[in-house]
Amino acid sequence: MPEAPESDPKTPYAQLLAELREVAVLSSINSTLGWDQEVMMPPAGAGLRGEQAAILSTLIHERRTSARMGELIAACEADADVMADADAAANLRNLRRDYDRATRLPTELVREMAEVSTLAMHRWREAREAADFPGFAPWLERLVRLNRDTAHALGVPEGGELYDALLENYEPGMRAAELDRVFGELRAGLVPLIRDLRENGTRPDTAWMRIPLAVDAQVAFNRAVVERMGFDFTAGRLDVSTHPFCEGAGPGDTRLTTRYDETLLLSALHGTVHETGHGLYEQGLPKAERFGQPLAEAASMGIHESQSRMWENFVARGRPFWEWALPELQRRVTDPAVGRLDVDTVFRGLNQVEPNLIRIESDEATYNLHIMLRFDLERAMLRGDLPVPELPGAWNERFRADLGLETPSEREGVLQDIHWSMGAIGYFPTYTLGNLYAAQLWEALRGDLPELDDQLRRGEFGGLLGWLRTHVHAHGRRYTAPELCQRATGRPLSHEPLLRYLENKLRPVYGME
Amino acid sequence: MPEAPESDPKTPYAQLLAELREVAVLSSINSTLGWDQEVMMPPAGAGLRGEQAAILSTLIHERRTSARMGELIAACEADADVMADADAAANLRNLRRDYDRATRLPTELVREMAEVSTLAMHRWREAREAADFPGFAPWLERLVRLNRDTAHALGVPEGGELYDALLENYEPGMRAAELDRVFGELRAGLVPLIRDLRENGTRPDTAWMRIPLAVDAQVAFNRAVVERMGFDFTAGRLDVSTHPFCEGAGPGDTRLTTRYDETLLLSALHGTVHETGHGLYEQGLPKAERFGQPLAEAASMGIHESQSRMWENFVARGRPFWEWALPELQRRVTDPAVGRLDVDTVFRGLNQVEPNLIRIESDEATYNLHIMLRFDLERAMLRGDLPVPELPGAWNERFRADLGLETPSEREGVLQDIHWSMGAIGYFPTYTLGNLYAAQLWEALRGDLPELDDQLRRGEFGGLLGWLRTHVHAHGRRYTAPELCQRATGRPLSHEPLLRYLENKLRPVYGME
Repeated sequence: MPEAPESDPKTPYAQLLAELREVAVLSSINSTLGWDQEVMMPPAGAGLRGEQAAILSTLIHERRTSARMGELIAACEADADVMADADAAANLRNLRRDYDRATRLPTELVREMAEVSTLAMHRWREAREAADFPGFAPWLERLVRLNRDTAHALGVPEGGELYDALLENYEPGMRAAELDRVFGELRAGLVPLIRDLRENGTRPDTAWMRIPLAVDAQVAFNRAVVERMGFDFTAGRLDVSTHPFCEGAGPGDTRLTTRYDETLLLSALHGTVHETGHGLYEQGLPKAERFGQPLAEAASMGIHESQSRMWENFVARGRPFWEWALPELQRRVTDPAVGRLDVDTVFRGLNQVEPNLIRIESDEATYNLHIMLRFDLERAMLRGDLPVPELPGAWNERFRADLGLETPSEREGVLQDIHWSMGAIGYFPTYTLGNLYAAQLWEALRGDLPELDDQLRRGEFGGLLGWLRTHVHAHGRRYTAPELCQRATGRPLSHEPLLRYLENKLRPVYGME
Repeated sequence: MPEAPESDPKTPYAQLLAELREVAVLSSINSTLGWDQEVMMPPAGAGLRGEQAAILSTLIHERRTSARMGELIAACEADADVMADADAAANLRNLRRDYDRATRLPTELVREMAEVSTLAMHRWREAREAADFPGFAPWLERLVRLNRDTAHALGVPEGGELYDALLENYEPGMRAAELDRVFGELRAGLVPLIRDLRENGTRPDTAWMRIPLAVDAQVAFNRAVVERMGFDFTAGRLDVSTHPFCEGAGPGDTRLTTRYDETLLLSALHGTVHETGHGLYEQGLPKAERFGQPLAEAASMGIHESQSRMWENFVARGRPFWEWALPELQRRVTDPAVGRLDVDTVFRGLNQVEPNLIRIESDEATYNLHIMLRFDLERAMLRGDLPVPELPGAWNERFRADLGLETPSEREGVLQDIHWSMGAIGYFPTYTLGNLYAAQLWEALRGDLPELDDQLRRGEFGGLLGWLRTHVHAHGRRYTAPELCQRATGRPLSHEPLLRYLENKLRPVYGME
């Protein structure tokens, strides 16, 4: 920690950095235990794990909101020497924001939200199983009310709306009005594109996806791809869990998970590449020196998602990637059906566009319509414009209008996602923000890396990763996501790069070049 | 927790139990992280793991030695109702002992011991590699001095000697004079037994041990044995690590490790069975209700070791076990060399007695001579009767006398074990205590279970496990190890059962029935 010279260990800033590191180390324990819970823990260990997490969460929350933390932040802000240092000033800007937000929430409200959301998640599972929205509605109503109270306690940003106070939890600096504008423009281009593709009459061949492949062979192929992408296995792992995730516990320890299905040739690959995108961001943050400081943290959920989606979709659903990856796969698999595959078939199959009732099974284009729908509905619920009992009707109507699908039951409709039952309002938009940021960064980096496609055709990812390291990973939270976007791409966030990218990729897949 | 009724959550005893459980949950985190470190952690995560362990250890130590903990213990001791309850009284007896011992140690001494032993372990590794005892001697001298200071701070038990204060860390209630007596009697019988076997001229066939077996097949066989022994896999795991161990983190989570070598038919089996013995004890302690209370903790290291060694040696190196296990193995392995094996060959091969320079490679009989030698030498060093520079000479001389082997270098001699470099004096005797307790428990339980051999021949371990659950596991630390031995076997600790067992098993193996 360059700001904490050993000769003067007692400056408030040195004390602050030491305290931040301790809190981060405590948090990293919860991260490792969380990974263990999903990947290793025997089922009977669940009770103990809950006790461990509860004690750690209390310790962490106490330290993050302690009077001492507040005093140290204030002392540093009052120190002109500290604030003259750009790094220190960036840290303190974020720390002030986080501390104020954390201490503004009444303990009772935090406790109630935790309690209600735990019960609501159980109730949601039952309700989804039974396609019983009325059974879940009272819980959702409570959670919307609690979110409203939370938003009021956190405070509405100047010129903003209530929703913005919650959006700040996930996407600092973003505003609902801005999302509304960008999403609206994207939707205006996306709906006709998807209609054109559907009415085109052709469909890519996807039968090859159901070529079986033994799990061992899939594991070896996935691992080879992850390694080639630049993920450091001396500082990370790749394992199996029911729901794939990435856990960046701290310096030197970033863990990915995926899941395999031996009836599908590429069952795990895009999930694995997605999580590796998150993992490369975690490994690229300057944690070795700055663990615990905002400068070593991700800029936002949207930026995090931009990394995973860029690798998953822009790279691993792109033609150049498969010119390298298909021979790699064929080299490892003796099945002649795999040997007969060609890059064009794989590329087209991976880019089929087909409206799906389920968000997480959706393609790159229709996925965003799922998100916009959720954003509009949760914003309306929070505002009080959409009473919870009317939610399924609003959902189904919008689904029909945007995706042309009838929703047969609430299980495949409004009850499909866990997020609202966890009390998370303001989270969904970060998924489409991830796509938007990915596209805008992708355009910018392609300008800087004219050889990129040739490199991808050879399975060389160092140029791409290097650009992301320099323009995104290295900055941590030095800039907000909107600022980072402006700096890295020279433009504010826009719907155009994503729409251009989808148009240019998908129309040719459907023979409309 | 039956002692903490919800209607009166504020009694000092209820508060004490809640505090103990929190400390135990914090400790269990360190256990899980320790397991992860050996089994899962990527190498670059070592630095973060060290920071995690340091923070947790500090939190745990602060709570264990806090003024509040002392006040709660004292308040309970002063409460006649609490002390009238046998469970509560047993808990408090142990808590008083532990608290007093923990608070007697000056912080500075604890810090110095931690610091010196960390450095000494590094130095020991280098010294062992180079067979350079003089390079390690100054560190050992410091550690002996620190152990002497520690023993003085802890206080010598009445009528005891300095060594007893350290022995209490591992084997509460045991005394060096008692060890001296029992070990001496055992040695007097063991040395001539081993000489007879060596001079007998025959040697069991052990060539079959070098039949190779693929790791996958070994894993399946080991897992089947562990499951059959009664280890609950819904509350535990079996994985691979460089050094096998058992980690009983807490209720519902007990993890075993082993290691495989595909050039050896049974490479992992006895290590696995050993750790499973520890694991069955951990799973048998009443942690679900009493986690954090002494009543849910192991009685001593010696008792813990008695469980692992009983299963490893008394069961899995016994003939009845192999009448079940050999067909089980043969059923899973197609190699005709395995098919040709018979129970007698396996039984004799597994019970070869052959003095070995290395403790951890030694057989059931000679192993104890290794321990007695270490006990005598560390006791003499602590007392000041054996200057550290004279240690290698004393070691080699004793080795020649007891085992008839010349020690070619200190690497295979006095530098072979890590224990002293960790500052652990008083630990070694618990290994032979484990053998002694195992033999004495084994005699007692065979009296109670006349069908045992028939059960073992059918791979039925429930009778044995049930006896151990009732007579050992269920008690936790209700009794000291000497008391537990007396209650479970009707006699104080004696060398006779172990000597009888070894005589009765080993002479026939060498054709001296």
